[in-house]
Amino acid sequence: MVCESLIKAAIIGGTGYTGSELSRLLSVHPNVDLVALTSRQNEGKLVSEVHPFLKGYTDVRFTASLDKVSDMDVVFVATPHGVAMESVPGLLETGVKVIDLSGDYRLKDIALYEKWYGHVHRDPENLLDAVYGLPELFRSDIKGANLVANPGCYATSAILAIAPLMKSGSIEDDVIIDSKSGTSGAGMVPSPRLHHPFCGEAIIPYSIGTHRHTPEIEMAVGMFSQKRPNVVFSPHLVPVIRGIVSTCYMKLKGGPVDVGKVYEEQYGNETFVSLVDEPSMRSVVGSNHAEVGFKIVGDTVVSFGVLDNLVKGASGQAVQCMNLMFNMDEASGLNFPGLGV
Amino acid sequence: MVCESLIKAAIIGGTGYTGSELSRLLSVHPNVDLVALTSRQNEGKLVSEVHPFLKGYTDVRFTASLDKVSDMDVVFVATPHGVAMESVPGLLETGVKVIDLSGDYRLKDIALYEKWYGHVHRDPENLLDAVYGLPELFRSDIKGANLVANPGCYATSAILAIAPLMKSGSIEDDVIIDSKSGTSGAGMVPSPRLHHPFCGEAIIPYSIGTHRHTPEIEMAVGMFSQKRPNVVFSPHLVPVIRGIVSTCYMKLKGGPVDVGKVYEEQYGNETFVSLVDEPSMRSVVGSNHAEVGFKIVGDTVVSFGVLDNLVKGASGQAVQCMNLMFNMDEASGLNFPGLGV
Amino acid sequence: MVCESLIKAAIIGGTGYTGSELSRLLSVHPNVDLVALTSRQNEGKLVSEVHPFLKGYTDVRFTASLDKVSDMDVVFVATPHGVAMESVPGLLETGVKVIDLSGDYRLKDIALYEKWYGHVHRDPENLLDAVYGLPELFRSDIKGANLVANPGCYATSAILAIAPLMKSGSIEDDVIIDSKSGTSGAGMVPSPRLHHPFCGEAIIPYSIGTHRHTPEIEMAVGMFSQKRPNVVFSPHLVPVIRGIVSTCYMKLKGGPVDVGKVYEEQYGNETFVSLVDEPSMRSVVGSNHAEVGFKIVGDTVVSFGVLDNLVKGASGQAVQCMNLMFNMDEASGLNFPGLGV
Amino acid sequence: MVCESLIKAAIIGGTGYTGSELSRLLSVHPNVDLVALTSRQNEGKLVSEVHPFLKGYTDVRFTASLDKVSDMDVVFVATPHGVAMESVPGLLETGVKVIDLSGDYRLKDIALYEKWYGHVHRDPENLLDAVYGLPELFRSDIKGANLVANPGCYATSAILAIAPLMKSGSIEDDVIIDSKSGTSGAGMVPSPRLHHPFCGEAIIPYSIGTHRHTPEIEMAVGMFSQKRPNVVFSPHLVPVIRGIVSTCYMKLKGGPVDVGKVYEEQYGNETFVSLVDEPSMRSVVGSNHAEVGFKIVGDTVVSFGVLDNLVKGASGQAVQCMNLMFNMDEASGLNFPGLGV
Repeated sequence: MVCESLIKAAIIGGTGYTGSELSRLLSVHPNVDLVALTSRQNEGKLVSEVHPFLKGYTDVRFTASLDKVSDMDVVFVATPHGVAMESVPGLLETGVKVIDLSGDYRLKDIALYEKWYGHVHRDPENLLDAVYGLPELFRSDIKGANLVANPGCYATSAILAIAPLMKSGSIEDDVIIDSKSGTSGAGMVPSPRLHHPFCGEAIIPYSIGTHRHTPEIEMAVGMFSQKRPNVVFSPHLVPVIRGIVSTCYMKLKGGPVDVGKVYEEQYGNETFVSLVDEPSMRSVVGSNHAEVGFKIVGDTVVSFGVLDNLVKGASGQAVQCMNLMFNMDEASGLNFPGLGV
Repeated sequence: MVCESLIKAAIIGGTGYTGSELSRLLSVHPNVDLVALTSRQNEGKLVSEVHPFLKGYTDVRFTASLDKVSDMDVVFVATPHGVAMESVPGLLETGVKVIDLSGDYRLKDIALYEKWYGHVHRDPENLLDAVYGLPELFRSDIKGANLVANPGCYATSAILAIAPLMKSGSIEDDVIIDSKSGTSGAGMVPSPRLHHPFCGEAIIPYSIGTHRHTPEIEMAVGMFSQKRPNVVFSPHLVPVIRGIVSTCYMKLKGGPVDVGKVYEEQYGNETFVSLVDEPSMRSVVGSNHAEVGFKIVGDTVVSFGVLDNLVKGASGQAVQCMNLMFNMDEASGLNFPGLGV
Repeated sequence: MVCESLIKAAIIGGTGYTGSELSRLLSVHPNVDLVALTSRQNEGKLVSEVHPFLKGYTDVRFTASLDKVSDMDVVFVATPHGVAMESVPGLLETGVKVIDLSGDYRLKDIALYEKWYGHVHRDPENLLDAVYGLPELFRSDIKGANLVANPGCYATSAILAIAPLMKSGSIEDDVIIDSKSGTSGAGMVPSPRLHHPFCGEAIIPYSIGTHRHTPEIEMAVGMFSQKRPNVVFSPHLVPVIRGIVSTCYMKLKGGPVDVGKVYEEQYGNETFVSLVDEPSMRSVVGSNHAEVGFKIVGDTVVSFGVLDNLVKGASGQAVQCMNLMFNMDEASGLNFPGLGV
Repeated sequence: MVCESLIKAAIIGGTGYTGSELSRLLSVHPNVDLVALTSRQNEGKLVSEVHPFLKGYTDVRFTASLDKVSDMDVVFVATPHGVAMESVPGLLETGVKVIDLSGDYRLKDIALYEKWYGHVHRDPENLLDAVYGLPELFRSDIKGANLVANPGCYATSAILAIAPLMKSGSIEDDVIIDSKSGTSGAGMVPSPRLHHPFCGEAIIPYSIGTHRHTPEIEMAVGMFSQKRPNVVFSPHLVPVIRGIVSTCYMKLKGGPVDVGKVYEEQYGNETFVSLVDEPSMRSVVGSNHAEVGFKIVGDTVVSFGVLDNLVKGASGQAVQCMNLMFNMDEASGLNFPGLGV
């Protein structure tokens, strides 16, 4: 591949965990030139000084904001909810493609957004055009998108497990999702809950019924299956760094259904979603791979969605979307296995 | 209390985690003299050599079997399922009281035992008389018992959360229990699943729908509430050493019910079960205390049972039962707080 | 023991980890009545609300400051370095005995204090009378003390391993101490270094050669052995919550010496320090017990000091000192074994 | 590079952690075709069934032994010490290049081997020709080698920190190495020490003065610097999965020396060894990168070697050696950053 064809990419908000993970993936992506990262607090510093694992992989310095957006092909927005929608409209006007990793463009229903996020949505126009960036379910939409709303980590793990069954018509509407997440999902800002002596030997349920991924899961499964589920969602923090297991409980309606076949038909040809007998978190950690598995207990299907919250649950999925948006091999730059051990 | 009144206690199977935890608790119990522990592999060794944390707390040596049972007041049986029922009948014949920490005397229905445990029950007579040793629900029965079947760790955590609501008549029969346990619950024998590089950064669902605590929970809740639930039980291993959080999902029937009041009436006067807003595993770890908490999400009650699987989930509860069986202060030897940090 | 004889104790700074651990120990101490705890941020709240593991063990509320000090027998000062010496002089004037858990009264040499702590010492008079509170080495001094400077956690673990050998005259002056500590030693305030995603799978050397326990170890070993060592001290943070292992390297002078006998003579009769072949951190965690062990490699003695940094390394040792200061059984309220598992 | 030029590689002992990590690296190496893996216990099974993270990356099945070695270019031997030297001579006779990851060909001195490994060396001839595979120190030798003895994980971390200073002539001969390792270094076979409830919250010193990497470090530093150090080596197990920090204590002779410059001159142009102010284990975990850093405390240099024990400490370094042996880009297949988080 010749140099001219490299996609020029930038990251707004390159200091946090999703921004840093994006820089890790993009700095070795064979088709990408990572040309800019912004960070107010680190302005002027080498990216490799702030993220020492990137020493030798990038010589870019953080800037306070993006210049020359017109020279770029894609901008990843890795700023907090509410902040992203400040910069997205301007970016789109320049013609650059945008992938937003916050929650600002995920919920199509503005009233729902404002209820769950607690503030007014200030970019309803672009919200209309935004595509929910879960490639295994919405691939063709992503290919044509100018603005992708990258899914949440919990949401991705649960949607992968629920959507095919909901679409098959074989399960009831009520779905219980009991998720267990590693701590990196909570971001890089120290807090009492993430303080090691507090969480290092604890299992911590939180935001039961109030977590923002609840309406996101309901919407995405609904869009895919034409049937919106009623979700009870319970996240738990557990002392691992990377990784989510979402255990999903769905009641079978009672008709004949081959659950394994439903999943197989949905994911049999996918590179990044495998149907497994026994979920294995360490098999996906460090990679863009996800696993889906299930057991049937009486009339209940217990399904698992397993992934690395920073890769398939965030930055890796964003890269996967970028690959689609630019008609590249969907696996480019992501084609490596999980750590295993 | 004068010296003559010390209760003479022995432990059969003193090497494993429940046996070792029992010896830790009994060696400082103000009303107990721990006179004997058996272990075939450690016969002749000082208990404090095998369990170095007991140095200075006991000078007993392991024996291969119990002599002079007639001199004892209580024997704790901490051997594996299927092995316990070999020794229990003989012990009971001598007149000693017995607390069995295995699953052998928990399920009143022999057919159910044989289905879930995979072998014939060889002591159906004593099974009839065995009392399920969960003091907060079956206190008066325990006081008069000669044989107590000490509950399972997962079972205790779930039953505490479910039983009061089921008894109140306010919830449907179908109950989903999603449990997360520390690794000490799996015992002291090394195995691939408990190998640190395998489980140290993983969340591992296992035995979905096939775990033996399923019928135990159904039975115990049924006995207490006169209403047997249908349980879907999913245990998960997480990388902490001690502690269980069981997240229980129950659907409200729809009539008026004050869930908090139901729990408060059940546990308001209990020493070892607290009703809390936010569960805190570290508050109970190292102690016999348990916590119950809940959230209501739509028509679903999400309840938590939290405890230390080796104490309230096993050996501490056994000591609590012993205290009741001998008309002592129920909290004797257990009256200390969890680690907190 | 009759009620009148209970020692009235208070804690200044009851919110942090050492204060909370003190409250855990004192609330079940058979000879102590914990009458007051201060906390500006939690003024008016129940202690058991802030520290939920104390529910049922104390009904005291936090106050902003101590009233009626004259009614008390002992005050534990658990405030940060530099703050403690603000309150200690006033307390001592009332005649109450004081145990300070900060570093303010540990270094007898004011110039050394000001060099390592970076500020002026404002209470040099009481510093003269303060006794270094390591009972196994300075028991008789502690018995008569009005002000005890409770040792640092790292310091205790290293001093126990080094002091007897230094006193025996068999080792050179240069000592290397490589310590590994659990994260609770760093206190309860969240920080980037203690953020779980940062430290949960990392080994973090820090403050090499600049940690304040360096001069403390040199001083305490020097006082005990009449020979001040030259210490190179390297602390490391590892992802456990409680526990320190200090690995100490000392060069033998070459004359005949029985290292095991030196330790045995020093600690053979001690309740809380055991000489062991293989150190076992879990045997001491949760308790006031410490372990010392050693190997000889060529002409180097590699010695270990192992303890729970919050108990024998802080609050437990403070209680042990209190017991001595009030002529009680030294082990009162501390006479229970470590967790083991 | 065209397809015909792919190097055909095989792994003997493909089930264990080093074998599995090799398969993870080689299956995505752009210049390698991984054609065979042996495993007696998994004979006939798909590699991707045993190592599920390789699903989609290899369709090779395990065989009991290697056929058609003559078709291969390189064989990695990942069997235990003592077993490797059974297969190496036959492999070399076929003309294939061999990289042995065991300790069988590391110690040039047969007497030393037999003393530390406890059995006779049965292939002294090939031992003579084996090259110690630490590229940063012995690059030119590795390029011409037919048999490479891949270094141990602890050894690599310590040698990188010690060798340049020893060669500079500025330090004394006595070196203390205090190493802390993640648990994956101990291999995949479950054992009491690696059982999660035992090691999950513990710091475990072991094999003090008796670990086999002691003579390996002495030999390799000696070969490189023409000056053999006297090493006291203390390994410790800590509850992380991947990663080693070796803290090395060396005494400066006293002449003028710029320690930073010594390291900079040695590693300034290296791809995989960085000189850092603050070591960061998470920056190297998952990658072939290592870090070296130091502090000077009085006349003592405290140096750190940091790496991922399974990559730079084992399988990654083996791939780096292979790249050199076949005149490829030394970083081929290894040119990706550590996890960071």
